[in-house]
Amino acid sequence: MFRTLQNRLVSAKPVFLAAQRGYAVKSVPLTAETYSTKVSRNPNFKKLDEQDLQHFSSILQDPHGLITGEDDLLFYNEDWMRKYRGQSQLVLKPKSTEQVSSILKYCNDQKLAVVPQGGNTGLVGGSNPVFDEIIISLAGLNKIRSFNEVSGILKCDAGLILENADNYLAEHGYIFPLDLGAKGSCHVGGNVATNAGGLRLLKYGSLHGSVLGLEAVLPDGTIYNSMESLRKDNTGYDLKQLFIGSEGSLGIITGVSILCPSRPQVFNVALLGVSSYEAVQKVFVGARKELSEILSAFEFMDGKSQLLTGRHLKIDHPIESAEYPFYILIETSGSNKEHDDEKLETFLANTMEEGLVDDGIIAQDETQLKNLWAWRESIPEASTIGGGVYKYDVSLPLKDLYGLVEAVNEKLVEADMVGFDDESKPVVEAIGYGHVGDGNLHLNVAVREYSKTIEQVLEPFVYEWIQSKKGSISAEHGLGFQKKNYIGYTKNDVEIKLMKDLKKHYDPNGIMNPYKYI
Amino acid sequence: MFRTLQNRLVSAKPVFLAAQRGYAVKSVPLTAETYSTKVSRNPNFKKLDEQDLQHFSSILQDPHGLITGEDDLLFYNEDWMRKYRGQSQLVLKPKSTEQVSSILKYCNDQKLAVVPQGGNTGLVGGSNPVFDEIIISLAGLNKIRSFNEVSGILKCDAGLILENADNYLAEHGYIFPLDLGAKGSCHVGGNVATNAGGLRLLKYGSLHGSVLGLEAVLPDGTIYNSMESLRKDNTGYDLKQLFIGSEGSLGIITGVSILCPSRPQVFNVALLGVSSYEAVQKVFVGARKELSEILSAFEFMDGKSQLLTGRHLKIDHPIESAEYPFYILIETSGSNKEHDDEKLETFLANTMEEGLVDDGIIAQDETQLKNLWAWRESIPEASTIGGGVYKYDVSLPLKDLYGLVEAVNEKLVEADMVGFDDESKPVVEAIGYGHVGDGNLHLNVAVREYSKTIEQVLEPFVYEWIQSKKGSISAEHGLGFQKKNYIGYTKNDVEIKLMKDLKKHYDPNGIMNPYKYI
Repeated sequence: MFRTLQNRLVSAKPVFLAAQRGYAVKSVPLTAETYSTKVSRNPNFKKLDEQDLQHFSSILQDPHGLITGEDDLLFYNEDWMRKYRGQSQLVLKPKSTEQVSSILKYCNDQKLAVVPQGGNTGLVGGSNPVFDEIIISLAGLNKIRSFNEVSGILKCDAGLILENADNYLAEHGYIFPLDLGAKGSCHVGGNVATNAGGLRLLKYGSLHGSVLGLEAVLPDGTIYNSMESLRKDNTGYDLKQLFIGSEGSLGIITGVSILCPSRPQVFNVALLGVSSYEAVQKVFVGARKELSEILSAFEFMDGKSQLLTGRHLKIDHPIESAEYPFYILIETSGSNKEHDDEKLETFLANTMEEGLVDDGIIAQDETQLKNLWAWRESIPEASTIGGGVYKYDVSLPLKDLYGLVEAVNEKLVEADMVGFDDESKPVVEAIGYGHVGDGNLHLNVAVREYSKTIEQVLEPFVYEWIQSKKGSISAEHGLGFQKKNYIGYTKNDVEIKLMKDLKKHYDPNGIMNPYKYI
Repeated sequence: MFRTLQNRLVSAKPVFLAAQRGYAVKSVPLTAETYSTKVSRNPNFKKLDEQDLQHFSSILQDPHGLITGEDDLLFYNEDWMRKYRGQSQLVLKPKSTEQVSSILKYCNDQKLAVVPQGGNTGLVGGSNPVFDEIIISLAGLNKIRSFNEVSGILKCDAGLILENADNYLAEHGYIFPLDLGAKGSCHVGGNVATNAGGLRLLKYGSLHGSVLGLEAVLPDGTIYNSMESLRKDNTGYDLKQLFIGSEGSLGIITGVSILCPSRPQVFNVALLGVSSYEAVQKVFVGARKELSEILSAFEFMDGKSQLLTGRHLKIDHPIESAEYPFYILIETSGSNKEHDDEKLETFLANTMEEGLVDDGIIAQDETQLKNLWAWRESIPEASTIGGGVYKYDVSLPLKDLYGLVEAVNEKLVEADMVGFDDESKPVVEAIGYGHVGDGNLHLNVAVREYSKTIEQVLEPFVYEWIQSKKGSISAEHGLGFQKKNYIGYTKNDVEIKLMKDLKKHYDPNGIMNPYKYI
């Protein structure tokens, strides 16, 4: 039988950026130094001078629009995992699309390299500079432009925080078709620029389907605007698609028009303990069939990820009865509580009867539901409690998904690097969790330090393993700085050539987010 | 109370192409002559000669791969509405991607213009030549390449007929995420090339979300292949998106990889009679909220469209009690019959109680369900029974959707052109129907002849009306030949310039489907 979740979990929503930012402790090494053999500054780019600063001042007309103080710059130069640090001397905070246009036009004319930055919650160093690129923060462009209650179309600035967008929609009976752990910090524009996937892609599909229009500024200052698009529009090439997932390499997204679904009236969340990865797969196949239209998330987590999360949150596991090698989080959402409860309970009873599920709990109220999600969403942060984390975000055929975690742990054990509780070893453990429903695994190698030695054990091994299974080396996190040189493991030569041609077509001077992507 | 549908409808699935092809009766005027003031042959294109034919023979290695006989060519030169007729002297039927590549490379080198053609079911003359372009038919590339029962990913040749794809998927418990009236003839590749929308977009979203990978041949013969993509892949620009909806203007799609959802276990279809367009909107807003996750189609049809359909099918209307100005077809699909029935019945009872719905029927078995859909799908063909039809496929804000039909009828009455039963008038009536759920109206002006005079009353009036409401002049049919000159009513100058740049980037010689699109 399923036990009811006692209201034991404290509100444990991960607050990205805050916890990790104890700057005094130890400074993050400069990306340019850590990767000095891989990357060098492009001498074609101009170095920022006093005249440039004056010009930007005249564009922004606001003393708070330019950030130049070293301490203030740190927040923008570093990523939240404390893995990358750039050396930008200038952050610009435009407040209008026209200002973004004037800035880019000037940078393009002067060959000043730039990095667009949203909420700075990226996981591949994509939104941090490598050398002295100017950071263009979208934080000042954060308004809701309009919402249509009949069509469900939301139009907003790129810098709107995802959670703010969703809270606004909730008041109108709608939901943002994307949800992810960093929602309290990340920007809608950043989500689109990185084609974020997140927790409910299973139900709402990818942003390539739900984004209806964009406003974006090209490197030469041209403002591309397709914000008026309706749900269906077959008049010419769907240019906005190029910006979705382009990680700031073609231009800067300044506005987003997106189709939002009706907010489900009922949510259910269950957390299950299972004995094998095979059982995880079987439960998934069954859930997709039996829960079908109400299945909105299907997440899995391995046992070690749970131990780390418990230590991080300093609370017991929601399922106290025993430790299981795998856990599954299922969310359903629909319009009729009675129907949804019946579907979920019947399904869970069947899976237990078939011996696929060993134990589990169903959230009994909103707080319990939020706490179960918070538990799941705390894993990324919990992975860093040893000191750091190497993150791999991969797509693999379902049957091979967990094999990668096992292979990496074997490899690390061979190298005598792993000690879950042995502080003398550099690696805590490789853990696995993610969106089974999308074939998307997050492999987090929790470490006590970042080091070349660990990196050499992991790479290119991880990428070669993925390639051998015809997977993708980036399911949803993107390429950024981390994976720039590894795209060949997933894309073929023709694809890469066509991408490079396209980059040159739109950004002939290469000023947009250089040293990254392709 | 809802009456049960008696099994009166004969199987009335529209068979495109067949009925309209009474060639002996009256020949379709040549597009080049009808539109002689708008278009002239590009003298840069080479004219086909004997050496070219020999070269193509050597590529295809099959005497049936080349069609040159005038009667045989007619099927490919004409569209099914009998509105456009090209003058191609050659149809090529490659059987492999490599053959397509060799053909295009040769054509590009020789500057021979080409038109890719799928099932030739298009509605804007996009797949028929205007002058002597070589037609490349994908009909010979029609195999299923693979299907993964766990992921639901189907990989197939572009020339696979949509209905064949869906029948195959049905055997495996899956459904193709697209359905439209022409499914018995249209090709999957053509659907993708035109970004077809169809009947269930409301539930399954657009092809931009569900297509995972493509194989396409660029004008210079380069084979672009992203068929290995999994559900999530953020490694670089999503190039395949450019081909979705590009109508053969950038290259030829030869393979499609698409994510298919589980086939719902229960379908319900209801047909309702309502008294006003306002009621249609209210029923829709209610359905989206109350039927929510099981609502898979919401179609509306006006009264006159029903009269034409009845005459065409030679049967009574499924709702016999009275004639209504508007009808709604609702489809639900889900995993639990009892739950779905309860949701639909409760919803319909409420709408009748509120006075929104006057009468209606629910299909009681599979045959009735199919017949109701067949009734809806027969409207396009029924629109042509007077002799021809001017078709407009538009996106509009929901509140303005039917206003366009009213405005057009007013305009035609002013010009003294309309007579539903008066054969002396050139126009039968402007009728409206379509996918309310997607804000997509089909305005069909049923006529007794195609004439410049009618066209001048309709255009640019229709396009200007749409522009004034910020709608799209093509929701799902595409631009093709019909709307080439009207894209400016929906897209702005920057968008059009960027599109033209992109066309030049990929097709510098302009051989791909010339005289159309942009």
